Amino acid sequence: MAVQKPSIPKGTRDFSPEEVSKRQYIFDIIRHQFQLYGYSPIETPSFENLSTLTGKYGEEGDRLIFKILNSGDYLEKADPQLLADKNSQKLISTISEKALRYDLTVPFARYVVQHQNEITFPFKRYQMQPVWRADRPQKGRFREFYQCDADVVGSDSLLQEVELVSLYDAVFSQLNIPVEIHFNNRKILSGLAEVADISNQLIDFTVALDKLDKIGEEKVKEEMSQKGISETAIKKLSPLFAMSGDFNSQLNSLEEILKSSETGMKGVEEVRFVFEKIKNLGLNSSDLVLNLTLARGLDYYTGAILEVKAKNVQLGSIGGGGRYDDLTGIFGLKGISGVGISFGLDRIYLVLEELNLFPESIENTLDVLFINFGENESVKAMKLAKQLRANGFRCEVYPDNAKMKKQMQYADKKAVKYVIIIGEEELNSQKVSVKNMTSGDQNSISDEELIQNLSF
Amino acid sequence: MAVQKPSIPKGTRDFSPEEVSKRQYIFDIIRHQFQLYGYSPIETPSFENLSTLTGKYGEEGDRLIFKILNSGDYLEKADPQLLADKNSQKLISTISEKALRYDLTVPFARYVVQHQNEITFPFKRYQMQPVWRADRPQKGRFREFYQCDADVVGSDSLLQEVELVSLYDAVFSQLNIPVEIHFNNRKILSGLAEVADISNQLIDFTVALDKLDKIGEEKVKEEMSQKGISETAIKKLSPLFAMSGDFNSQLNSLEEILKSSETGMKGVEEVRFVFEKIKNLGLNSSDLVLNLTLARGLDYYTGAILEVKAKNVQLGSIGGGGRYDDLTGIFGLKGISGVGISFGLDRIYLVLEELNLFPESIENTLDVLFINFGENESVKAMKLAKQLRANGFRCEVYPDNAKMKKQMQYADKKAVKYVIIIGEEELNSQKVSVKNMTSGDQNSISDEELIQNLSF
Repeated sequence: MAVQKPSIPKGTRDFSPEEVSKRQYIFDIIRHQFQLYGYSPIETPSFENLSTLTGKYGEEGDRLIFKILNSGDYLEKADPQLLADKNSQKLISTISEKALRYDLTVPFARYVVQHQNEITFPFKRYQMQPVWRADRPQKGRFREFYQCDADVVGSDSLLQEVELVSLYDAVFSQLNIPVEIHFNNRKILSGLAEVADISNQLIDFTVALDKLDKIGEEKVKEEMSQKGISETAIKKLSPLFAMSGDFNSQLNSLEEILKSSETGMKGVEEVRFVFEKIKNLGLNSSDLVLNLTLARGLDYYTGAILEVKAKNVQLGSIGGGGRYDDLTGIFGLKGISGVGISFGLDRIYLVLEELNLFPESIENTLDVLFINFGENESVKAMKLAKQLRANGFRCEVYPDNAKMKKQMQYADKKAVKYVIIIGEEELNSQKVSVKNMTSGDQNSISDEELIQNLSF
Repeated sequence: MAVQKPSIPKGTRDFSPEEVSKRQYIFDIIRHQFQLYGYSPIETPSFENLSTLTGKYGEEGDRLIFKILNSGDYLEKADPQLLADKNSQKLISTISEKALRYDLTVPFARYVVQHQNEITFPFKRYQMQPVWRADRPQKGRFREFYQCDADVVGSDSLLQEVELVSLYDAVFSQLNIPVEIHFNNRKILSGLAEVADISNQLIDFTVALDKLDKIGEEKVKEEMSQKGISETAIKKLSPLFAMSGDFNSQLNSLEEILKSSETGMKGVEEVRFVFEKIKNLGLNSSDLVLNLTLARGLDYYTGAILEVKAKNVQLGSIGGGGRYDDLTGIFGLKGISGVGISFGLDRIYLVLEELNLFPESIENTLDVLFINFGENESVKAMKLAKQLRANGFRCEVYPDNAKMKKQMQYADKKAVKYVIIIGEEELNSQKVSVKNMTSGDQNSISDEELIQNLSF
């Protein structure tokens, strides 16, 4: 067989022991908080029927879904004309009936509808699984990455939004990442478009507004104007740019602008409810910020819109979510309102690296390496290792009677905490020599003492 | 949009909260023991380059690999003649360059070669990830399932085999599953074929021998004879069927048979080493059994062969492994010996179910449900929930001021341990009513008492 130079597909990653351990640290904290907040785990298959996924993410999304080639003679039933025309697009549904999960939300909606009779509503579920997108790979954008989602379906209570803000705060506080939780409401955006009489230009309006932070008020107005939003409308929206003060005074100003829009006023009322409850409850380390420019996947959300940004780093959003009123409708179950949030594992990882916030203890190190001096010595080492493992210590017996130097180098590279030496002398005297690799201290202690207390 | 009746692809599964929690229980124990034995985690991408996987699993294996359709205009460069001929087989390499992981071993070999300069050898790695096979789905056989593997590469020390037997024992003891660990050595099988002068019929010989348990000595000999193994050879192998006693007397009988085969005698020596060391070390709850009929993927293994069977249930193998002397050779790194074992998650799950061995505590239940009597009451509930969560309790506030009966039904279905009631009276008196859902007892206690001690 010809020798292959090994590599992996673009946009995918191998994870080293250190990286797996650090990722596991993040997963564990998110999972722990999901559970404390009463969310239950589900898992769905890595691939779904292609028809379950197509048409749910827009045209661009459909192209970015990884399709799986049918097994066996997949061309058997293909239309010869499509083959002759090399019509890649139209042939897909003939030669592929399965596709890799693109996100966790659509499979969740499919799950809820399929299992509706086994589920108790409101259903609070979390899901932490990889998703795949045939995106052009670039820095920080991968073709395989994890999503960590918590959603509630079957309840339109605003207490869910309050709980989700509180959950974001709980996770990022435990990770020691200070964040701003940006909050908006789709109904406010709709209301603003309504009062400015540009409801049919809602997307142009919110896309431009979304850039306020980056390009400033004048440029935003310019862009709106270029997109054909009238001067009258822009003038009507002007107070939006001048809002300041705490959320209460901002909401009061908003009410002034929106008073003629029922939808808009409902949006303000919803935001006020959440902010007041959060003020009453308190947040551990996060700030809740009203951000009227926030729009995230507008097609999708019908109420609250959330996005999380880490302070002190420029890394964009590390989480987001919102309320959607009819997600399961596409699968035939109407009238189920849902709200959920997502955590961006890769971005959170980058933030923890950049702020140096990974605890040292999570490095996946070995507690004890037993040096191997030969067969009899190694049997004793294995016996002691077994007892130490029963006490929770990570142990290894060096597999060969190699030169001491080589074994110690191995201990160094694996950042072992203690090296235990059992030579002929130790074997006869029921003792071991323990070397603390941090301090360099070496002590001779009895086997008993070793097992009783590995802290010397 | 037309309403779709939701379903998932054949051979795949949704996992409910209860199932995820039970699977997590198994994963956690395996991971814990892997770590105690000094194995470090790695993860590899779900899809590899197709060329990395093809040719590694035999012709049948190649067909069972799920291929991913190239993105974009995948037919652009296709040979028109192949399209006209509908040559599904030959077209694959043109329209697919990526494929889903078929097992964890080949990606691990690829990882070792690709990262050889970052790795400290001997390299002990574990990996717990899903794999995919386009197998015909049937009871207990899925198209997506997890593998949990631990391997050491870069050491040919037999102490690794001893440690792996010990690791199997540690995991299954912690899971409370009594098992037999069947042990054999490829060199013994080769030696037997050698002394019977049927080295060119090694596969026929071992395939027949493998059926001894099921069909008995006479039928095995019949099958060998049918496969063209001479009567002389079968006579020479006869003592094999009459072996009995402890492993020492069995090994002595084997030495009698194999004395003219250097390879065979080496195999006996290796098995003796492992059995003696294990006898000396002791196993917690497992039996180590010499099983000369064990062959598992003969092409692959060069030394030890292991397989684990649960006692008291008829579920086949729940784990297996062995030593392979040149796995990384296919990717250009020669002379790296490896040995590893694998745990079959799905089978282990079935054993735990059948023997009723899942601990009750792992059901993913809620500790506390706060009944919702209205806005003010629910704010107090959320404050108390926050404090209880900080103490590690899983809490939920019912999201709506629904009828008491409905809320209590929800508590029942979610198997909540405590229901906490905060009505108008409790709100004014800084007290709560706590109902123990197991005993039915209900007590009124102060907020303070609740937070200090949720054990009433």
